[in-house]
Amino acid sequence: MTRIVAFILAMVALVAPVHAEVITSPGNVISVTIATNGEGRPVYSVSRRGKPVIAESEMGFLLTDAPQLLRNFKIIDAKTSTHDGSWDQPWGEWKTVRDHYNELRVRLQETSTLHRMFDVVFRVYDNGLGFRYEFPDQPNLKTVNIAEELTQFAVAEPARAWWAPAFESNREEYLYNDTPIAEIGVAQTPLTLKTLSGLHIAFHEAALVDYSGMNIAKVQGGLLKAVLTPGAGGPKVTRAAPFPTPWRVMLIADDAAGLYLANPLILNLNEPNKLGDVSWVKPRKYVGIWWGMHLDTQSWASGAKHGATTANTRTMIDFAAQNGFGGVLVEGWNKGWDGDWFANGEDFSFTEPYPDFDLEGLQRYARSKGVTLIGHHETSANAAHYESQMDAAFALDRKLGIDAVKTGYVSDAGGMKFKLPDGRVVFGWHEGQLSAQHHLRVVEVAARNHVTVDPHEPIKDTGLRRTYPNWVSREGQRGMEYNAWGVPKNPPQWESELVFTRMLSGPMDFTPGVLSLKGRGGTPLLSTEAKQLALYVVIYSPIQMAADLPENYAQHLPAFQFIKDVPTDWSDTRVLNGEIGDYVTIVRKDRASENWYLGAVGDEQARSSTIKLDFLTPGRRYTAQIYRDTDGPDGADYRTNPHGITIETRMVTSADTLTLNLAPGGGQAIRFLASKAK
Amino acid sequence: MTRIVAFILAMVALVAPVHAEVITSPGNVISVTIATNGEGRPVYSVSRRGKPVIAESEMGFLLTDAPQLLRNFKIIDAKTSTHDGSWDQPWGEWKTVRDHYNELRVRLQETSTLHRMFDVVFRVYDNGLGFRYEFPDQPNLKTVNIAEELTQFAVAEPARAWWAPAFESNREEYLYNDTPIAEIGVAQTPLTLKTLSGLHIAFHEAALVDYSGMNIAKVQGGLLKAVLTPGAGGPKVTRAAPFPTPWRVMLIADDAAGLYLANPLILNLNEPNKLGDVSWVKPRKYVGIWWGMHLDTQSWASGAKHGATTANTRTMIDFAAQNGFGGVLVEGWNKGWDGDWFANGEDFSFTEPYPDFDLEGLQRYARSKGVTLIGHHETSANAAHYESQMDAAFALDRKLGIDAVKTGYVSDAGGMKFKLPDGRVVFGWHEGQLSAQHHLRVVEVAARNHVTVDPHEPIKDTGLRRTYPNWVSREGQRGMEYNAWGVPKNPPQWESELVFTRMLSGPMDFTPGVLSLKGRGGTPLLSTEAKQLALYVVIYSPIQMAADLPENYAQHLPAFQFIKDVPTDWSDTRVLNGEIGDYVTIVRKDRASENWYLGAVGDEQARSSTIKLDFLTPGRRYTAQIYRDTDGPDGADYRTNPHGITIETRMVTSADTLTLNLAPGGGQAIRFLASKAK
Repeated sequence: MTRIVAFILAMVALVAPVHAEVITSPGNVISVTIATNGEGRPVYSVSRRGKPVIAESEMGFLLTDAPQLLRNFKIIDAKTSTHDGSWDQPWGEWKTVRDHYNELRVRLQETSTLHRMFDVVFRVYDNGLGFRYEFPDQPNLKTVNIAEELTQFAVAEPARAWWAPAFESNREEYLYNDTPIAEIGVAQTPLTLKTLSGLHIAFHEAALVDYSGMNIAKVQGGLLKAVLTPGAGGPKVTRAAPFPTPWRVMLIADDAAGLYLANPLILNLNEPNKLGDVSWVKPRKYVGIWWGMHLDTQSWASGAKHGATTANTRTMIDFAAQNGFGGVLVEGWNKGWDGDWFANGEDFSFTEPYPDFDLEGLQRYARSKGVTLIGHHETSANAAHYESQMDAAFALDRKLGIDAVKTGYVSDAGGMKFKLPDGRVVFGWHEGQLSAQHHLRVVEVAARNHVTVDPHEPIKDTGLRRTYPNWVSREGQRGMEYNAWGVPKNPPQWESELVFTRMLSGPMDFTPGVLSLKGRGGTPLLSTEAKQLALYVVIYSPIQMAADLPENYAQHLPAFQFIKDVPTDWSDTRVLNGEIGDYVTIVRKDRASENWYLGAVGDEQARSSTIKLDFLTPGRRYTAQIYRDTDGPDGADYRTNPHGITIETRMVTSADTLTLNLAPGGGQAIRFLASKAK
Repeated sequence: MTRIVAFILAMVALVAPVHAEVITSPGNVISVTIATNGEGRPVYSVSRRGKPVIAESEMGFLLTDAPQLLRNFKIIDAKTSTHDGSWDQPWGEWKTVRDHYNELRVRLQETSTLHRMFDVVFRVYDNGLGFRYEFPDQPNLKTVNIAEELTQFAVAEPARAWWAPAFESNREEYLYNDTPIAEIGVAQTPLTLKTLSGLHIAFHEAALVDYSGMNIAKVQGGLLKAVLTPGAGGPKVTRAAPFPTPWRVMLIADDAAGLYLANPLILNLNEPNKLGDVSWVKPRKYVGIWWGMHLDTQSWASGAKHGATTANTRTMIDFAAQNGFGGVLVEGWNKGWDGDWFANGEDFSFTEPYPDFDLEGLQRYARSKGVTLIGHHETSANAAHYESQMDAAFALDRKLGIDAVKTGYVSDAGGMKFKLPDGRVVFGWHEGQLSAQHHLRVVEVAARNHVTVDPHEPIKDTGLRRTYPNWVSREGQRGMEYNAWGVPKNPPQWESELVFTRMLSGPMDFTPGVLSLKGRGGTPLLSTEAKQLALYVVIYSPIQMAADLPENYAQHLPAFQFIKDVPTDWSDTRVLNGEIGDYVTIVRKDRASENWYLGAVGDEQARSSTIKLDFLTPGRRYTAQIYRDTDGPDGADYRTNPHGITIETRMVTSADTLTLNLAPGGGQAIRFLASKAK
């Protein structure tokens, strides 16, 4: 016996008319319908300019201690509203961000016994949308223990997908698969699609607060669904109502450039700045004692190869001061690196330096030169241990005037280690609910001490930098370090993929600028020298490292000049062209001047494109300082002549065009230095 | 900073030689290597006749309350053994099953702090293999709380996959996807592959006892991995050491026929019969008050349409007795069907009949006619509620002489509902650890009362019928009921797919034999009449329903004769030919006589094959009673002439051949009636 449910409910549907609500974006581009189907399942669909983008897709929840929230729902209330405003980023890719959407809030209630409720709120923009569930206070659903969120995304067209696998040994640093949508396994977000008709769609989330991260699994064909990151031995999420889930976000655009430009939508869906005055948050470039460890010429651990010595650090401070870098990161400064430090251990002290590292003296020295040390807290993914010292650690930073800390969550033992309020120790994933809680605790403690944070092996970025502007950057994909020792190294198209995938989520501390183009043991990077410069514009972060060793920069001073010149804070950003994984050209305007900067990166093929300079101010003359791959038969090529760089200067105006020729594995960087306004 | 782990461990690997153990199958067909790789990860690989089948694949566990079991392992002990024996099935497809394997038992221990251990045991057969983890008693791993089992299956060749999605709204009844392996999402097992070189591989498990069911997800490309069914708000599995996991099984054969014939391997990996004398377990055919409800001409609920009335049941008992059916299933006999019964409710009584159903009188009447009622326990997937009445329910059956019960686990509310020992109520999946525990409790209580069980919406079959022979059959895929009301109905190739997918796991209570070829509202089945007969041979179950209404059989008495004749217990089974999803021909020998039975089913195309009758006893003459699709231009076709059946008789011997012509949507059934031996 058995599955008569379907037809019983089909009969019900004949008498209970299906109720649907529709909301369109301000410019009538995107339209969303939410309804309950014949079984009372909440469903939604999305169309764009009248064509389906997301076919009817279900919404709901499985709970661990109560019947699922999936069937027998009715829309009992619907409200629409509209919002048009703008807000300023304290730092960012744009000075001012416009937030213009139409909102539909629908209340769904079970028609059966428990009469439980949730709201679904859609905010629909012309270039995408976000929706979230909100659980109101209610008698029959006090604590919501979520086994799974049943949100579907039924992609209406065949599509190609760029996706990195989720749940792989607790790491989130993987090459992207470029496959038909049907070959997606379980993907991290952002997950980027290009449909048969050319539409670009990215799935992600916004405001991941006290919830489990969303991954996206392929069910079959083009049907995708949310898969929450598992809990640490408990439900995936436990929350007391009322509470909202994070926003489920789709960025939707006609082309790759439009997709990137849609990403402020994610910030818009986050709460405004909660920290008040954040003038103590400083975008900056930095150098550090770091690349040597990845080259294995220095060590984090104490001993003969110890990198973080007083002497080495003084030298690095001098280098920073001479070249205008505001920060000096020092990894391996603190006790705890001498054992099996990547196994959730408790060896690390976050306040005690190694004896050969004069923390206070060095920071005094740095400040005397207009520089600061950048702190470093490698946690070994032992959040419990870190939290036990965190207050003291950030208080020490405040006392010393160290205003920035890089954290790390390396784990090859058991993911993240947490201590629950009841004292139990549990292990969970880097993007589970406990991890989301932990990261915000760190950010809040840091903020109280006027310290910015930059977590590596982090939880993913969901735009919380708007709410917590001291959360300046993070890692969260394969950065430069993979060019030291990765198997394989980052391929030539890597950054052209990153821009339209990982970078849609927010800043990445990629640590570019290895002008020596050499990894561990002298192995080559798959990049030209010019491309290393372009990365400072292409890969956005308000803190940018000049990652190479000072002695290497000494060998490449002409190109190093661009790294010294390029700012890290912008008032405007434009994407001039791009195809996912092929090439991209981005221009950004310095927030502190009228200068513009261009970065273009390609893939393993030679690429040529002609761009208009109409982003420049009309009537103004600019000195274009061009750092490009050398042309010609003996020109640049990442395989044969990676250091083939040509640096030239031209006068240009907004009426000009430029042809960018990228070598295989190449790139181009341009500084447009504005002449004084007439 | 960070991912130096890989190269640190690579350095370790240079000094610590990798240790590998190899075991081959008795006939040297399959070879398995187990080793630890450079990071100390346990890995295995499988080859067949020297060609890789499974490339290096990792093994291990994530735990919720302790560091993962994945790296830094060393093989500290290895033992091999060999086994060759046979055992008799009390009922089954074969009387005697041979169990011939070589075993390799490897003990792995962590080299780091905790020195935890597990064994991996491989049993390697010529047509497949099983392996499982065994956790010994040990000081640093008393309770094993598993977040995920990290078993990989790196399929070495491109392959086509037949797979049904897992974790879909708590149902396990889905059409199979037929896609390249790269398009697998998360699949139920059995998961069947056909590789580029033609090798047939099925992944499944054996002896799923007190553990969570294994599903298989595609990571990327051909890399697959285990995904355990989620826990009910806790770890996926919680066990005290010592304990073994279920066996991870691969059936491997040159062709589809060989794949089916490999499936006793799953039984071999289960423990022998624990119930002792099981002569009270009766293979049989049955009829019942069931199809009318699916047609919506009767109801489970009380009232005017109530099917399970005393009068209707007496008529059905008479029909059974007249036609030689041993059982009469009656659904809707008990109180509880009048509300929202598919929502984990507590309305059902498993002992109280509706007032219009004279349970005791009817069972007396049935027994007087040589028939028995078959009990029915629809649980609404509320295991807690069912367990509270289960003892009384089975005691009642024993008292009345009802020796078989069909159970049901329909849930459209929240999966399975359980009560934990501490009183908490939780909801979980149909194949989680709590469900595995529940099903065995039911089987054990039933066994104590000499009752067989046949769960619908069950946990999957993993061969436990060997250990508990009263677990006679189950549903677990789309059966006949989908032809009443399914959207879509079962397609013509359905049963040709089932044989090489779902049926590899064990018997299925498909409930064939709808000779009217009509579902609800007169909608047509996608089948010819002859195919309905063939299903009794093709789809193995020791209990087989004649599912149609008696008045429909009255319209098709010539074909009905085969249903009356066909047995349900066999001494031998052969697969004469087959391609997954295209066609299959199976012959089985009656356990109670010298007669053989043939069933052949096809797909939407006409199919023709010539078979040798060399399975018959040489020198003996057989009367072949052939039920076939009518040939010719006006012949049978499921779309135009589904009732085109030709019944004919021929004398044959083992030296003969027969050509089987299957119509589109067709099939063929043959009874080979042995003449008296000379």
